[in-house]
Amino acid sequence: MLAAHYAGNRTMTVAHADPAPPGPGQVQIAVAYNGICGTDLHILSGHMDARVDVPAVIGHEMSGTVAALGDGVDGRSVGDPVTVMPLAWDGTCPACRAGNSHICQNLDFVGIDSPGALQGRWNVDAGLLVPLPASLSLKHAALVEPTAVAVHDVRRAELEPGQKAVVIGGGPIGVLIAAVARSFGGEVVVIELDPKRRETAAGLGFTVLDPREDTLAWVEEWTGGAGADVVFEVSGAAAAVLGAVDYAKVRGTLVVVAIHPEPRPVNLQRVFWRELRLLGARVYQRDDFDTAVALLDTGAIPADALITRTVPLRDVQSAFDALTGGEAMKILIDVQAGQETA
Amino acid sequence: MLAAHYAGNRTMTVAHADPAPPGPGQVQIAVAYNGICGTDLHILSGHMDARVDVPAVIGHEMSGTVAALGDGVDGRSVGDPVTVMPLAWDGTCPACRAGNSHICQNLDFVGIDSPGALQGRWNVDAGLLVPLPASLSLKHAALVEPTAVAVHDVRRAELEPGQKAVVIGGGPIGVLIAAVARSFGGEVVVIELDPKRRETAAGLGFTVLDPREDTLAWVEEWTGGAGADVVFEVSGAAAAVLGAVDYAKVRGTLVVVAIHPEPRPVNLQRVFWRELRLLGARVYQRDDFDTAVALLDTGAIPADALITRTVPLRDVQSAFDALTGGEAMKILIDVQAGQETA
Repeated sequence: MLAAHYAGNRTMTVAHADPAPPGPGQVQIAVAYNGICGTDLHILSGHMDARVDVPAVIGHEMSGTVAALGDGVDGRSVGDPVTVMPLAWDGTCPACRAGNSHICQNLDFVGIDSPGALQGRWNVDAGLLVPLPASLSLKHAALVEPTAVAVHDVRRAELEPGQKAVVIGGGPIGVLIAAVARSFGGEVVVIELDPKRRETAAGLGFTVLDPREDTLAWVEEWTGGAGADVVFEVSGAAAAVLGAVDYAKVRGTLVVVAIHPEPRPVNLQRVFWRELRLLGARVYQRDDFDTAVALLDTGAIPADALITRTVPLRDVQSAFDALTGGEAMKILIDVQAGQETA
Repeated sequence: MLAAHYAGNRTMTVAHADPAPPGPGQVQIAVAYNGICGTDLHILSGHMDARVDVPAVIGHEMSGTVAALGDGVDGRSVGDPVTVMPLAWDGTCPACRAGNSHICQNLDFVGIDSPGALQGRWNVDAGLLVPLPASLSLKHAALVEPTAVAVHDVRRAELEPGQKAVVIGGGPIGVLIAAVARSFGGEVVVIELDPKRRETAAGLGFTVLDPREDTLAWVEEWTGGAGADVVFEVSGAAAAVLGAVDYAKVRGTLVVVAIHPEPRPVNLQRVFWRELRLLGARVYQRDDFDTAVALLDTGAIPADALITRTVPLRDVQSAFDALTGGEAMKILIDVQAGQETA
């Protein structure tokens, strides 16, 4: 089979490897598609070299079909369409014992801390499988994982039908959050600097603002002087964090979705004055995955608009480079393309 | 009567004034004691000159007795011991309509935005009165307002019995939060730089740490590697904010109690990683006031330990100066002393 490795030095390599049979309790998946996310780009940039064993098969946004069952696996059949919730927790740390195993203090994020899905055959513990309905295409199903992130973010915010949400950042996760919030009955505005991304979001029916406009006055008017119920900070920009709290109503919520590698100045006076709530939101829980599958299956998530293009596994480096350069929303890797000749 | 005014230029003046009769719907209070809080010191420093009309009678932590009733006031009698919840909301702004009138978007904080209690006779709307039990001394009752702040902070944190709380800052509000958290069944550690304040808190039975120790390792061990359920940031120091999130468990809560006049660097990576919750908490609601009265009445609040001394109204400047210099926890002003000769 072909497998793609992060080889260090901003390089992805593709090489032949012999597939291993699934171990006891494991399922072997014939990986169909793999999305590339911001974390994968962080890995490529070398920022996560302390965490990743080079060379590493990465990839965790995927879809595929069951190819083989290891000993002791029940309830799955060869050919079943599946995706994977790539979290392996220890079950014993204080966070797990308190019911927060999804952010286990010793979490193994499969595809980062252990081998991922950018390979023709991938063995994972059967408990990580999430079954897919036959009506959901495997291309769209490659968006289940990032959609689950968005579902988790919106659930964490406790957004209620009719509430108003500001999404700062109109990249893939920002648009997914906007789409999930809308499907939950929220009214959404997206703030995005890049004109192409603004166009994409506007094409999906969202109100879109340029952050260089007077967005604060716009939100004030939109909300009748109250401020937004929820603000999602998805941009990762320091300036966005500083301004984000100004959009929120008294007792409103700011969800910190983006990665901020350095401490960011936060207007705590505003947090105090309006009794705001800032929430961290990371990965997802199983319910979020199931909801993500359902939202993609019903078409509530604009999957086709988010998938800029699909490329074969051998072109994985070009996909990473294009995404690093901001030239695309989501590029899927067709992991089966070329496998038969490898 | 004698009244104390903030006269600008870091100066409090005491002068004779004729008491006005209470207007319709008002009650005239013979003010007994007045506490001085951090906000009063901010006013004296000139930082709030844009908000305060000079010369201004300030003061909002008080106790007294009903001296006269204006037209249309029912249910109160001359001689009743009372304190005042010094919040006047408009009832029409979005925050009020959403049930958050205590942080009304046009809040009149009585004693800051309108005349306060540092005067022999004080007229307030009858609706602001909070009755006091005869068993509660008027000196202790002057602590109801700051105790209500602490009750609000602890309630906002949703601290449950048996949970562990870190209080950063062992000044009057920090100690009150620690005492309220303990009375709610929490286990508390106080972190405080000043040795005298550490001694006061330790004398009240709290575990107290010097921030120059390895407080993080201490909290880790105390909590079995989980982290604290709740962290209260009461110090106002930038360094404390930066470190505060490290004490909190997965899905733990950080309550921002202190005033931070400038944006502070916050470790949002930690907020994200542990799915933390940062909450602003400001003033109080009526339930908090009633609980504060009850906690002071039962002795759960160490009022005597917090009241460093009591001085007559004519010495109000020295009290402000001593508090500005950090020489005392809480100084009460005896507003009746000297009134009969004025």
